[in-house]
Amino acid sequence: MRLSKLQRYRVPLALAGATAVVILAARFAPAAKRTRQKGGGKPRRVVVVGAGFGGLAAARRLVHVPRVDLTVIDQNNHHLFQPLLYQVATAALSPDDIACPIRDTLVRGGRATVRMQRVTGVDTNAREVVCGEERIAYDVLVLATGSEPTYFGHSAWRKLAPGLKTLEDALGLRRQILGAFEQAALASDPAERDRLLTFVLVGGGPTGVEMAGAIAELAHDMLPRDYPGLKGRVRVVVVEAESELLAHFAPGLSHYSEQQLRRMGVELRTGVKVAEIEPGRLKLGDEELVASTIIWAAGVEATPVAKWLGLKPGHGGQVQVGPDLKLPDHPEIYVIGDAALAVGGDGKKLPGLAAVAKQQGRYVAERIVEELDGPAAAKPFRYRDYGSLATIGRNRAVAEIGGMHLRGVPAWLVWAGADIVFLMGFRNRALVSAQWLISYVTHRRDSRIIS
Amino acid sequence: MRLSKLQRYRVPLALAGATAVVILAARFAPAAKRTRQKGGGKPRRVVVVGAGFGGLAAARRLVHVPRVDLTVIDQNNHHLFQPLLYQVATAALSPDDIACPIRDTLVRGGRATVRMQRVTGVDTNAREVVCGEERIAYDVLVLATGSEPTYFGHSAWRKLAPGLKTLEDALGLRRQILGAFEQAALASDPAERDRLLTFVLVGGGPTGVEMAGAIAELAHDMLPRDYPGLKGRVRVVVVEAESELLAHFAPGLSHYSEQQLRRMGVELRTGVKVAEIEPGRLKLGDEELVASTIIWAAGVEATPVAKWLGLKPGHGGQVQVGPDLKLPDHPEIYVIGDAALAVGGDGKKLPGLAAVAKQQGRYVAERIVEELDGPAAAKPFRYRDYGSLATIGRNRAVAEIGGMHLRGVPAWLVWAGADIVFLMGFRNRALVSAQWLISYVTHRRDSRIIS
Repeated sequence: MRLSKLQRYRVPLALAGATAVVILAARFAPAAKRTRQKGGGKPRRVVVVGAGFGGLAAARRLVHVPRVDLTVIDQNNHHLFQPLLYQVATAALSPDDIACPIRDTLVRGGRATVRMQRVTGVDTNAREVVCGEERIAYDVLVLATGSEPTYFGHSAWRKLAPGLKTLEDALGLRRQILGAFEQAALASDPAERDRLLTFVLVGGGPTGVEMAGAIAELAHDMLPRDYPGLKGRVRVVVVEAESELLAHFAPGLSHYSEQQLRRMGVELRTGVKVAEIEPGRLKLGDEELVASTIIWAAGVEATPVAKWLGLKPGHGGQVQVGPDLKLPDHPEIYVIGDAALAVGGDGKKLPGLAAVAKQQGRYVAERIVEELDGPAAAKPFRYRDYGSLATIGRNRAVAEIGGMHLRGVPAWLVWAGADIVFLMGFRNRALVSAQWLISYVTHRRDSRIIS
Repeated sequence: MRLSKLQRYRVPLALAGATAVVILAARFAPAAKRTRQKGGGKPRRVVVVGAGFGGLAAARRLVHVPRVDLTVIDQNNHHLFQPLLYQVATAALSPDDIACPIRDTLVRGGRATVRMQRVTGVDTNAREVVCGEERIAYDVLVLATGSEPTYFGHSAWRKLAPGLKTLEDALGLRRQILGAFEQAALASDPAERDRLLTFVLVGGGPTGVEMAGAIAELAHDMLPRDYPGLKGRVRVVVVEAESELLAHFAPGLSHYSEQQLRRMGVELRTGVKVAEIEPGRLKLGDEELVASTIIWAAGVEATPVAKWLGLKPGHGGQVQVGPDLKLPDHPEIYVIGDAALAVGGDGKKLPGLAAVAKQQGRYVAERIVEELDGPAAAKPFRYRDYGSLATIGRNRAVAEIGGMHLRGVPAWLVWAGADIVFLMGFRNRALVSAQWLISYVTHRRDSRIIS
C-alpha cells in the first residue's frame, strides 16, 4: 500500500512523539531490581562463554552479586544487536550503531573479568575452560555460544552464499551489494548488468524477508538518485522451501508479507528447494537464477558446544539440556540460547530467538544465586512468549503480540519502538537512535560506504 | 592544564551554543554561487581522477556547467574527511561519520558520471585515461590523486609501521590499539604487557601530534573504567627528526604542544631519527623501543601520477606544474593537490594541505569554464592561507589564523567549529556532528568495536 503524501508525514510525526515518550519513560523508569544477594560463604567462580543475548543477560544479573567471581569470555570485544544486522548490510546503520563493548556494562562498576579469547574446549573433569594453551577454572559454567549458518552438508556453498551473523558478514554484504551497483553502472553488456543487479535470498523466514525488503528499498531509494541508468533494473528473489514465507506466523500475516514484498517488486519462489549453488548462479528445480549476490538465510546450527563437551549433538548441533537448562550429567554446566536444545512447557522445542536466550540467561543467573549455598529445588525454565515481529520495509511489518495480529503501520511502529528501546538499552545513545529512525523514515542513507 | 569542574562545563555549554549558531548560519546561508556558465558550443569531456579535497572541489563546481560532460573516477565510492581519520582510529567516530558517497553530491541533480575504478595509466597522445582494459576519453584531465605514506626507501617498514590515509588504515589501527588493550589484560608476563601497551608515533607533525594525544586520551578515558588493572601503564612515544614538534607552527605554539603532550604523559624524542624498525621494536640511535604498535606519520609521497604521465617525478614523487597548475607540455592536463609540485607567489613550494587542494580544485574548475571557447589569458593560482590548526586533545589545540596565535580552549573551539562546518558540509548530519562533539567532550566513546 502506497501511503499518500499526507499520511507519509503522519508517520514520522507519530514516530517522533513516540520516541520522545519512550526516551522519557526509559529515563525515569526505576532501575532494574538487583538480583537478590546472599551473604557469607565462599565466592563461586562463574564463567560465561559468549556475550550474545543469553550470555550477557546472565552476566548482567551476576555482576553485582558479591559472592560471584564472574568471568565472561567472548571472541569479540562487543555484544552485537543481531536483529539489526541487515540494516548495516543495507547501509542504513553504521556497524558501531549496533555493537556495544562488552566491558561497558560488565566491568564498569561491577567486578567481572572480561576475556577476549577464542574457546577451544571444555575440560569437564578438571572444570576448566580451555582457550588454546590457557585454562580458566570454573565452579559453574554457562555456555551461550549461539549459532551459525548451516548449509545442510553443502559446505562449498558457505563461500558462495554467505550468511548474516557477524559484523564482518554485514560489512561484507554491504560491500558486495553496493559494489554490484557500482559495477553495474560500468557494465556495457546487458546480461552482465542483469547478473550484477540480481539478489537472491535463500530462506523466507524473518531474516530473508527483512533482507529482501531492505534490498528492495535500498534499490528504490538509491538507484533513481545515484544510478539513474539502473532505475527499475534490480531484481530481488526470495527462495523458500516451505509453501509460504514466515511460516511460523499466522496465515493472514504470512499472506500480507508476501503481498507487500510483491508490491515492492520482490519475486517469490515458495515450495522449492535449492538444488545447487555455483559461483554467480543458483539452481532451483528447472529454474536457474543468475545472480551476483546470493545470501543465505535458510537455517542455523549450534556452534560446536557438543564437541567441546564430548556429547552427541542433537538436531541442529544443539546440546540437550534438562528443564533447568543444566546438562543431565553435569549440574554445574548450563547451556542456553541457540546452543541448547530445550523443551517448553508444551513439550515443543523452544525456538532460536533472542527473547528465549535472554529469558534463559536471567533464569540461569537466578538459579546460580539460589544455589550459592548448595543445591536448591529448581522451578523449571518457562519461556514467556511476548510475541513475534518481522519487518518488511518502511511502514510495513507484521507482529503477533499476545492474541493480536498487527500489520502495516501499527506493526511497524511496534517494531521501531522496540528497536529504540533495545538500542538505547545497551547503547544509551538516544540521539542516534532517534536520528536513525528519522533518517530511515525520510529515506536518507548516509552509510553507503564501501570499505 | 587541568580544567576545574566548573570550567569543564563551560566548554560544552559554549560549544552547544556555538553549534546551534553554526547550524543556523549554515542552514540560512545563501547557496554557493554557481560557476558562471557560458552558452553555445560543443560540450567538453572533463575527467577528474580522485575525489579527495581537490578533485571533489573541482567536480562540485563543474557539475552544473551545461557544456561540461563530467566524469569522476575514484577507486573508492566515498570522499573521505581525512583530518578526522585519527578519531576513527581511536574509536571516537564511526567510519561512516567521516565518509560520504561521492554520488551524493555529484550525481543527484547534476549530470556527472561517477566511476568506481582504479586508474592504471594515462594515454596522453590518445587523450584517454586507462583503467585496466577500459579507456575513458577526455578533452581536459584533472589529476587529483593525492599522496600515500612514504618510508624513504625502507619499504619493509610499511607493514610494521602502517600510516593513516584510508578508512582501512584507520580501522586496522583501531583493531590494533583496542586489541593490544585486550591482550594486555590477559598477559601474565609484565614485559609482554608493557610491550603491548607501548605505542610509538613516528613523526611529530600535526598527524603524529593528534594521534599521540588521541591515544593518550583513549587510554585515560578507557583504562580506569574498562581495564582497571592496566591503569597508568600505557606508554605513548612521539619520535621526531626535527628539533621540535609541529615545526611549521610558530615557536610558541610548538612549545605549547610539547608541554601539553608531556602533561598528558606522552614521551617525546625530538632531534632523533628512526634507524631501524623490526617487528615489535624500533631503534633510535642508542635507544630501543619495544612496542606492539608503531604508527607512521613521518611523511607522504605523491601517488604514481608521474609514472602515468611518463614524467620524471620531482621531490616526493610530485609532478611539476606551471603557475596555472597545467603540465607544461600538456595544457589540457591539470595536476592538483598532494600530487602536484606547485609554487606559491613567494616562490616557495605549496604545502600538502586540504586547503591548498580545495583552492586548487576551485581554481581549475574556473579555468576550465573560462577556456570552454578556447584558450584564455590565465591568472596564476594563488594560495590563500587562512591559517593552520592542530589539535592535541580535548580543550587543547594550537591555531595560527591570520597573524593570531591561539592555544588551549580558544584554539580548540575554532578546531571544533571548523570540523562541524566541514562535516555538515558534506554529510548534512547536523545531529550526528553535534552528538559527536558532545560525547567527545563528555569522554564517551561508543565506537570501541573491534571488527
